[in-house]
Amino acid sequence: MKVDGRHFRSIWVEPDGWSIGAIDQRRLPHEFVVAKMTDCDAAADAIRSMLVRGAPLIGATAAYGVALAMRSDASDAALDKAYATLIGARPTAINLKWALEVMRETLLPLPPSARSDAAYARAGEIAEQDIAINKGIAEHGLALIEAIRARKKEGERVNVLTHCNAGWLATVDWGTATAPIYLAHDRGSSVHVWVDETRPRNQGASLTAWELAHHGVAHTVIPDNTGGHLMQHGMVDLVIVGTDRVTANGDVCNKIGTYLRALAAHDNAVPFYVALPSPTIDFSIDDGIRQIPIEQRSADEVATMTGRTADGRIETIRVVSDGSPVANYGFDVTPSRLVSGLITERGVLQPDRDALARAFPERARVLRALK
Amino acid sequence: MKVDGRHFRSIWVEPDGWSIGAIDQRRLPHEFVVAKMTDCDAAADAIRSMLVRGAPLIGATAAYGVALAMRSDASDAALDKAYATLIGARPTAINLKWALEVMRETLLPLPPSARSDAAYARAGEIAEQDIAINKGIAEHGLALIEAIRARKKEGERVNVLTHCNAGWLATVDWGTATAPIYLAHDRGSSVHVWVDETRPRNQGASLTAWELAHHGVAHTVIPDNTGGHLMQHGMVDLVIVGTDRVTANGDVCNKIGTYLRALAAHDNAVPFYVALPSPTIDFSIDDGIRQIPIEQRSADEVATMTGRTADGRIETIRVVSDGSPVANYGFDVTPSRLVSGLITERGVLQPDRDALARAFPERARVLRALK
Repeated sequence: MKVDGRHFRSIWVEPDGWSIGAIDQRRLPHEFVVAKMTDCDAAADAIRSMLVRGAPLIGATAAYGVALAMRSDASDAALDKAYATLIGARPTAINLKWALEVMRETLLPLPPSARSDAAYARAGEIAEQDIAINKGIAEHGLALIEAIRARKKEGERVNVLTHCNAGWLATVDWGTATAPIYLAHDRGSSVHVWVDETRPRNQGASLTAWELAHHGVAHTVIPDNTGGHLMQHGMVDLVIVGTDRVTANGDVCNKIGTYLRALAAHDNAVPFYVALPSPTIDFSIDDGIRQIPIEQRSADEVATMTGRTADGRIETIRVVSDGSPVANYGFDVTPSRLVSGLITERGVLQPDRDALARAFPERARVLRALK
Repeated sequence: MKVDGRHFRSIWVEPDGWSIGAIDQRRLPHEFVVAKMTDCDAAADAIRSMLVRGAPLIGATAAYGVALAMRSDASDAALDKAYATLIGARPTAINLKWALEVMRETLLPLPPSARSDAAYARAGEIAEQDIAINKGIAEHGLALIEAIRARKKEGERVNVLTHCNAGWLATVDWGTATAPIYLAHDRGSSVHVWVDETRPRNQGASLTAWELAHHGVAHTVIPDNTGGHLMQHGMVDLVIVGTDRVTANGDVCNKIGTYLRALAAHDNAVPFYVALPSPTIDFSIDDGIRQIPIEQRSADEVATMTGRTADGRIETIRVVSDGSPVANYGFDVTPSRLVSGLITERGVLQPDRDALARAFPERARVLRALK
């Protein structure tokens, strides 16, 4: 999407043909900085430190990380090492594992001399596939937005609430939750987005708001506590969020706090949709609350915040009382009973095992194999 | 309660016998600063700027504000002016109106020459009454905590989640939601408090955590998004929050986000209690969502945060993407159907009209008068 009028993706191969460029998302919204990765460790660090984040982008970054590894050493041992280095960088996002499996399956049968080129090609395909998937999500989600518009008065905006950043910065381009919003906007359909600040790390206030502003989409940043009140007062027409992992039966693991939004939507009869590329579905598990490991992150992410002073300096400040312990769970699980539908590249699906297996039979085979 | 081993209240008459001291809560947790108020405008400013906050403390501050006004001019006109100045300072808290009505009823029948002394005396009574009420809340709430403890294994802590600051800083002393917690702690009963950060303004991370740490109560600060996840995993035994206004039928208006906590508690069969002094009950209304005005506050409270840098400077930083609009609703309303009980100075009550009217017949007369 657009940054100051110029088209960007979140990750790309640099003009040198091999090093990998990415937007350093830790510096947004106050600074726009491009980071360059030249080895596999740098890719793992970028994932771990959240220089890049968002399930689909984590997958693409891991794929390019394997390519960087293969470029310097294409042995089986190096492939195993790259896999091990990257898989540990973030435990929750299933796309990371998916991308690494795809890369390994592609490269292992090849002679080492062919692996580097094949790795770049396959990583590029993963990136292009992500964009294609997101365009599919955009079309299917747009139909939901337009169905709501059809029930509104002329000129009234459709109000969408989103949590965290499931925008183009979380993917290679377009985003998942934001894809229908960008498409509606680009086609001249008036949309307004309530952007949850999304503590800790504030990906809503710092990334989603930044994206929407640069693309010209009307939006308002709200504290995470606000959505329920807005829904009680009819100010939200639908919720669209992204996800880091969806179980075979439609439980949705996403940024911490998503579950609270889903409860409020359910209590106020507001449709609650989850936008996801199919690689986010984990057909091997079916109880999200019991089976998905929830990453616990550093206390500093809660206890401190980074931002810009009035005179332009970037400062990090402590915002929690000294010495008070902090807990920082990265994700929660929204049970499928609270989900109105899953917006995928193959249509809007009911959040249940049959619907997912019917839509993605080639992936559901894994499920059957495990039974 | 204790600050560095010394007993403090949140507001007091200074040794000069007339000026009013209060802890400047905007400076906590990083600086402990006492503010001095010498006229009614200063009291109104203190309420408006949230130098003092919390429904009961707002009431006490308003009462002392009237006393300060009477000291310099005890005419009927001055009394009207003080009322008008103070009533506009915060629109949602019912205690403000209650305290001002009490002061007016007390002072209006008196000759102006007697009003200043009477105003200080009545404001002092309001402060002492608040403490007595909170001790009652403490005893009734303690029974709830001990009932949960009785079902636990020896040595297991009772985990209480609270939102915002309904601690001693929100009252004159003891707090409302925290009163049972402090009493349990003081009696040697092991309690652990999950403290919601409570964006915007972070009263949980900056005030509740500070209070609990100074009094030695075990606690952990969490982002507002976290409570649902904790409840899904059995890590919360009960929720106790405060309130700024309770309707005659038990709807609870409290800091924005309380409703989301109540939904999560309900979904996970976690008891959700609201602690309140009876002046917080507004017997004149019975539909919280439709009838309680929800204060909208400055965008800066969301867009910027103030804290301490690693080298000890207090800085204010912007944390929202430049130019993105912000909405800042101060409160939401939790429908009574989600409330397990109301912890008052007269016992734990069902959140319904009959129970409230039976417990507070002298206040419910107002309700009947309005019918």
